[in-house]
Amino acid sequence: MTTTIDLNADAGESFGRWRLGDDDRLFPQVSSVNVACGWHAGDPATMRRSVELARTHDVALGAHPGFPDLAGFGRRPIGFSPQQAADACLYQLGALRAFADAQGVPVTHVKPHGAFYGLTARDGEVAAAVGEAVRAVDPDLIVVLLAGPTADAVAARGVRVAREAFADLDYRDDGTIIIEPDPAAKDPHACAEQAMAILAGEVTSTEGHAVPVRADSICLHGDRPNAVDIARAIRQRFAAEGVEVARMARVLARRG
Amino acid sequence: MTTTIDLNADAGESFGRWRLGDDDRLFPQVSSVNVACGWHAGDPATMRRSVELARTHDVALGAHPGFPDLAGFGRRPIGFSPQQAADACLYQLGALRAFADAQGVPVTHVKPHGAFYGLTARDGEVAAAVGEAVRAVDPDLIVVLLAGPTADAVAARGVRVAREAFADLDYRDDGTIIIEPDPAAKDPHACAEQAMAILAGEVTSTEGHAVPVRADSICLHGDRPNAVDIARAIRQRFAAEGVEVARMARVLARRG
Amino acid sequence: MTTTIDLNADAGESFGRWRLGDDDRLFPQVSSVNVACGWHAGDPATMRRSVELARTHDVALGAHPGFPDLAGFGRRPIGFSPQQAADACLYQLGALRAFADAQGVPVTHVKPHGAFYGLTARDGEVAAAVGEAVRAVDPDLIVVLLAGPTADAVAARGVRVAREAFADLDYRDDGTIIIEPDPAAKDPHACAEQAMAILAGEVTSTEGHAVPVRADSICLHGDRPNAVDIARAIRQRFAAEGVEVARMARVLARRG
Amino acid sequence: MTTTIDLNADAGESFGRWRLGDDDRLFPQVSSVNVACGWHAGDPATMRRSVELARTHDVALGAHPGFPDLAGFGRRPIGFSPQQAADACLYQLGALRAFADAQGVPVTHVKPHGAFYGLTARDGEVAAAVGEAVRAVDPDLIVVLLAGPTADAVAARGVRVAREAFADLDYRDDGTIIIEPDPAAKDPHACAEQAMAILAGEVTSTEGHAVPVRADSICLHGDRPNAVDIARAIRQRFAAEGVEVARMARVLARRG
Repeated sequence: MTTTIDLNADAGESFGRWRLGDDDRLFPQVSSVNVACGWHAGDPATMRRSVELARTHDVALGAHPGFPDLAGFGRRPIGFSPQQAADACLYQLGALRAFADAQGVPVTHVKPHGAFYGLTARDGEVAAAVGEAVRAVDPDLIVVLLAGPTADAVAARGVRVAREAFADLDYRDDGTIIIEPDPAAKDPHACAEQAMAILAGEVTSTEGHAVPVRADSICLHGDRPNAVDIARAIRQRFAAEGVEVARMARVLARRG
Repeated sequence: MTTTIDLNADAGESFGRWRLGDDDRLFPQVSSVNVACGWHAGDPATMRRSVELARTHDVALGAHPGFPDLAGFGRRPIGFSPQQAADACLYQLGALRAFADAQGVPVTHVKPHGAFYGLTARDGEVAAAVGEAVRAVDPDLIVVLLAGPTADAVAARGVRVAREAFADLDYRDDGTIIIEPDPAAKDPHACAEQAMAILAGEVTSTEGHAVPVRADSICLHGDRPNAVDIARAIRQRFAAEGVEVARMARVLARRG
Repeated sequence: MTTTIDLNADAGESFGRWRLGDDDRLFPQVSSVNVACGWHAGDPATMRRSVELARTHDVALGAHPGFPDLAGFGRRPIGFSPQQAADACLYQLGALRAFADAQGVPVTHVKPHGAFYGLTARDGEVAAAVGEAVRAVDPDLIVVLLAGPTADAVAARGVRVAREAFADLDYRDDGTIIIEPDPAAKDPHACAEQAMAILAGEVTSTEGHAVPVRADSICLHGDRPNAVDIARAIRQRFAAEGVEVARMARVLARRG
Repeated sequence: MTTTIDLNADAGESFGRWRLGDDDRLFPQVSSVNVACGWHAGDPATMRRSVELARTHDVALGAHPGFPDLAGFGRRPIGFSPQQAADACLYQLGALRAFADAQGVPVTHVKPHGAFYGLTARDGEVAAAVGEAVRAVDPDLIVVLLAGPTADAVAARGVRVAREAFADLDYRDDGTIIIEPDPAAKDPHACAEQAMAILAGEVTSTEGHAVPVRADSICLHGDRPNAVDIARAIRQRFAAEGVEVARMARVLARRG
């Protein structure tokens, strides 16, 4: 059983006058954050504050590029070509890196958001284009993708990939996840249970079947109303079970 | 009289389906380009192509951040605070740097666009915030500002500043420039004449008075219909008069 | 003393995933609402729901056009020409009218938002262009403007104008208001007091001087955290003092 | 054989500083125009000028709502729900109606643009939601849809539908059209030939098979470089063959 895992959260999803998530309380609970970069959420001021918060709480800072869709919060599919997907990633990754550079914080990873994430999970060409574009910027950057065959194929091209599983989402029989447009509160203990199942290499689908999972990182959604409670429940369970939480770079290093 | 000067052009101002400027023919005529970064023009695909073009023609690549106003092409003033101005610069600078990093091209400078440029010329606090934010990202980055007291004040803070003058814009008695929302063609020879006057340290205002100017770089607008002809006329005049055109970093190094 | 007045609230200021204001509880307290139309807040789904809510609570429905600035919530000044201001009003007014037409609810008024409102208060040409554009769409439409000389000038051109005063904002000696970018909670009783002062024709400036005010409508900001409490305090005070609250069309009809 | 047909063009597709199409020369050649409404093209000033041009040339004015995607010119699919599609149509239709009302020009029809059009052709629920939303605004409004079973189903619900075919696009065997992201010039005579084939009720697919078509209106794309030449070639051919060109409302009235 895996005994070291990264715990990541999507964060920095306020926009101007609008607040979303409780980042001040969420950041201390996780080892990595994925920060919205302006296209689906995260105006520049929010991005700057997210970098400050990552520095304060010493968590790994990642870019969370989304589709250009503020009204849909990046959760509506858009028909991006592989090249458009790569360009969208670089644009948003770069924007975050400038704020990070100005504060002396490294950006360690990139994780597409919402429907963009879904596209990279389904479309190997898009995933490959994103992976190679990120590697061209900096080969040390980690690309976070849904654990599964597409992630494996991108890793086989020499891109540094972290495979991700979800403590707070339901799985289908085919290993894909069911994304909610507007996440509701979930039972923290059920999420902790699913986190342990991921570490053991197998989750249960909504149809009741066993689905094999191999993950370097477990994700929480910062816009779920009780995200902080879920994070705490998972941390407590991990502490009780002797599971170490570490930044994804360290997890990958251990996996070899 | 100055015998080395940078010649820069605002470029990369297409957006998706819409084309503007003739960058293929303009880039070979200048030593530096300022590339739109998505807020007033320059979608990600255009940015990527602008970086390719800068690499092909070996010109210094700069970011040209604008106000978030596609409909107004960044030429309508927006009441940004100094912090908002700094954030806007970093966001757009960073976005361009990702495309540049992916192609191995350095970004050497940052020059605000249109009404944002006007704001930095008028408002010393905004100019200082922009200058210090850019320096925090990388102290080697040059900030291009309208030659004048604001630029001098930013330079006095230790920011690397290139002072700019305009071959294709009219000057007021107070040294400020008259920006056109939709630039018309201009007589190339008159522009070449004004470029020589800038090198000699003095332009003539629309009111007919002498206005002192001290410039490290001379600007052309890529969206002027005959921008390429103007650039050629200036290059020919410079060649005839023994003026060397060099990237702004080299001009600054010579100025010491 | 005025004994009939409209009480209006800025509303419908959510955007997609982001919620702002408590419209379900605010609408029953007011006689008119000004609904964001997509440029500073109010995505199409929110606009549709705002129309439903206006119909349910039988309040006068107005358009609340803002500057095109989601990140700044329309509270940063933009240098619009009179023509651009008129175009911006028509675009957003029209968008709301389609949702209203589909539900059989009339749009009765137009009130610019935030920094756009500030521009119409300061710039008579902009106010006139807005007023005449709205009248051209439908001469029965009321344009809501800050009570003062600009509003009087627009009314003198034959535009139907409602003069507005603020129960929840501070006044300067010159009769202009102090707009907060991010409104904090205010004492409901102090707001009710200021509402009564407006009815009596005179408010006290932050400098302690009497400022004459003549208003057809009193405004509350829906994005103030305790907006509903303020509205209730005003309604109770009005009920106690025998002040009738009525839609602005009826107030104007009474004024003759 | 049909002897009366509407000839419509997508138009008003400039945006701010960027110009696209030659509307001054195109409008006189057609009987109906579909004007971009700000989401994929067509800023408010362009919309106002498009209404003026429709009035000047006495052509039927329609709204051409697109996906919210300026960078992709509305030609990338977005996963809109039926409700989101209906809301997007109403928002943009309303925006255009305000400019039209201000100039006393009726808006007669609505035709989704690009990938939004494609979605309505493929997804009957989306098409029905759009059709019923438009009817709720005004039952006289005509919804323009790709001739085919989806259009027939929307018409069967009591929505006023104009069935459309394309003189300047290729057809697949299944009757769907092949949309180009960036249309190239086409042979005007081939387009005129295809227009005549449409009138005769049958076009030839790219695979060489006969595809039955029943159309009330034939479309031209205003952003094709030689759109005006194509329009002229069709008009000349129609004149020679005794085909009358009339606004779509008159064509529908004749069809009964």
